[in-house]
Amino acid sequence: MSRKIDVVKNVLEANDEMALNNRVLLEQCGCLALNITSAPGSGKTTLLEKTIVDLNPMRSGVIVGDLQTARDAERVAHIAAAVVQINTEGGCHLSASQVAAALEKLDIRNANLDFIFIENVGNMVCPSDFDLGEHYRVAMLSTPEGDDKVAKYNTMFQPADVILLNKIDLSVMLHFDVSCVRDDLSKINTRAPLIELSAQTGEGMQQWLDWLQNAKANLGSGK
Amino acid sequence: MSRKIDVVKNVLEANDEMALNNRVLLEQCGCLALNITSAPGSGKTTLLEKTIVDLNPMRSGVIVGDLQTARDAERVAHIAAAVVQINTEGGCHLSASQVAAALEKLDIRNANLDFIFIENVGNMVCPSDFDLGEHYRVAMLSTPEGDDKVAKYNTMFQPADVILLNKIDLSVMLHFDVSCVRDDLSKINTRAPLIELSAQTGEGMQQWLDWLQNAKANLGSGK
Repeated sequence: MSRKIDVVKNVLEANDEMALNNRVLLEQCGCLALNITSAPGSGKTTLLEKTIVDLNPMRSGVIVGDLQTARDAERVAHIAAAVVQINTEGGCHLSASQVAAALEKLDIRNANLDFIFIENVGNMVCPSDFDLGEHYRVAMLSTPEGDDKVAKYNTMFQPADVILLNKIDLSVMLHFDVSCVRDDLSKINTRAPLIELSAQTGEGMQQWLDWLQNAKANLGSGK
Repeated sequence: MSRKIDVVKNVLEANDEMALNNRVLLEQCGCLALNITSAPGSGKTTLLEKTIVDLNPMRSGVIVGDLQTARDAERVAHIAAAVVQINTEGGCHLSASQVAAALEKLDIRNANLDFIFIENVGNMVCPSDFDLGEHYRVAMLSTPEGDDKVAKYNTMFQPADVILLNKIDLSVMLHFDVSCVRDDLSKINTRAPLIELSAQTGEGMQQWLDWLQNAKANLGSGK
């Protein structure tokens, strides 16, 4: 067992070093990076479609992680300035080295981007351990998944800088109790704002866009 | 890297051996075991609540895997004959050794159970590699997750023996296109039946119950 633990530790250390390099590079380019994590089907790609159009498409880049297919990349390709799809071929999370390669492909030094959105593999467990070099981590939950998920998947919500509750338009029909989410968050993460929104209907999106613009304005000012 | 691959291989081999032991033990007890995998919030626990009541509660046992909390176990505790909760403490899937320990706790040799339902950790990626000793693998998708998930998470759907499409009552409202699921399945798994159901409303549940009873009837007859 100890050999396995050593190997895991080495992998995580190498990842952290690469993540730091990514973060330094992104800051040199004045580009804010967000690592978006959620279960499959929470609506990450729809959120990005709407967010990028409302921000500034020509100054937004996207890195999409998926086990297979380029479907998510295709959905945002006509909106964002640049998109890179990473197929993890079975891997349950993105790593900092994959993001480093993607930043290279995006020609980040010359791309003149304000935002990089990294859509992680749909998974509430594995991405949590891997720093990608982002500035902020976004954890998203959607109402059809149920109001008990913060306590059950606490490793995803605990390190998040902002928490999005998507598909809020379905909450009444699905008897989703937002107070359960707030109660569970009060025990593990009181610093991250919880933004209730629907990427589909647009409800609550302005609060998310304001949060993003504010985060961008603070980049490099020692947030 | 080669050391890491060796370690992973050893872990998988040890798991397969333990899984075989579990399967032999379960067959000696005349107990059919099902390994249920899905994303978080697809409705695994609600499915079990309804399934067990309709089958025979006194002859059904449940093993529940979660990172944290005993919430799912508590939900089925008053229905099933016996329930064991496994907290993986960060682990993204159940392993055969955890299930072996749970079978011990259930006193499987004397428990006189027809069915063991193993509710895996909510995760579409990691559980796929780990045989738990089940007889059949059940892969569940729910309509709010989107109709593009079979191709994207093919490693979960490819080895499944039966595929459940839950929350079918929401499909029209969510513009969920079942033909996308059928098309994607036709490329990777043509042997598993696709059962459309709603654990909440009861729609389609009879087909699932019939499938279970048929699988139980064939246990030990060299299915």
